[in-house]
Amino acid sequence: MDLKSVIRTIPDYPKPGIMFRDITTLLTDARGFRRAVDELVQPLAGAKIDKVAGIEARGFILGGAIAHQLSVGFVPIRKKGKLPFETIGETYDLEYGTDEVEIHTDAIEKGERILLVDDLIATGGTAGAAIKLIERAGGVVALCSFVVDLPDLGGAEKLRAQGMNVTALVEYEGE
Amino acid sequence: MDLKSVIRTIPDYPKPGIMFRDITTLLTDARGFRRAVDELVQPLAGAKIDKVAGIEARGFILGGAIAHQLSVGFVPIRKKGKLPFETIGETYDLEYGTDEVEIHTDAIEKGERILLVDDLIATGGTAGAAIKLIERAGGVVALCSFVVDLPDLGGAEKLRAQGMNVTALVEYEGE
Repeated sequence: MDLKSVIRTIPDYPKPGIMFRDITTLLTDARGFRRAVDELVQPLAGAKIDKVAGIEARGFILGGAIAHQLSVGFVPIRKKGKLPFETIGETYDLEYGTDEVEIHTDAIEKGERILLVDDLIATGGTAGAAIKLIERAGGVVALCSFVVDLPDLGGAEKLRAQGMNVTALVEYEGE
Repeated sequence: MDLKSVIRTIPDYPKPGIMFRDITTLLTDARGFRRAVDELVQPLAGAKIDKVAGIEARGFILGGAIAHQLSVGFVPIRKKGKLPFETIGETYDLEYGTDEVEIHTDAIEKGERILLVDDLIATGGTAGAAIKLIERAGGVVALCSFVVDLPDLGGAEKLRAQGMNVTALVEYEGE
């Protein structure tokens, strides 16, 4: 099946000129959801992963499913102020201003191999911050998996230039 | 395994006097996570479910895993303003003020049997609003599954009094 057939495009959301790629229609489609999970882990080719880290909030849905598929634990990477235990944080640039994501200091054991999951990569700001958090927490990012890549915004390319393994299931150009 | 052994209690979070039950330690534990998913679907006893609905944000992690386990689609129930397509909303009371959750109008087909998932039930405000959304969207709530129940706050009892099937894996009394 073509995953693009179950991804909905919403023009001018959240603001004029933006073509929003809505994966909720993929998630509600049983075959689409399962296919996405299978394809997101495929580049691992059976290599061992210790934990899946998902970025709030859509990365939680896919990451939870992938952790279940791989029979490993799940690590939430959340917006600032949402995790109840001791955290470390990383800020990243937005179009206007900055934002921050956090991870629990004890979420990862030293040397654990982590699969990072989110629904979409654009400029790569959030993913870059998440990678730094995983590494500061002691982990090694084995693979970064995204459903959607907007290659014109350069995020995936930037992560690959840092030596990351990056996979994305579908691309939308001209964003 | 005793699931309570992998749930962390954080005293005085988010404010003095609250014993916060932190399930991130359960999620990062591969055996705990898998066990929780298995137990959350166990009351279905093989009965057919069409979709899993998860409540933002921790319900996304468990709900994504459960949808994967059952090979069905996933429906996100999100905080107001987070879903990009046409939505319906339900407000619910907080200790001070109100909050609102939303669902996409096309997320559920008429008569579909839905498993509702969240990490914790306290007063049941969010879960009650989520049930109304699922029913207004055309679904039938077959089961409400929570990892943690705080029975002193009465939420699970209230849902059962409405005729809901409710399961919770662990209880903490004296909250």
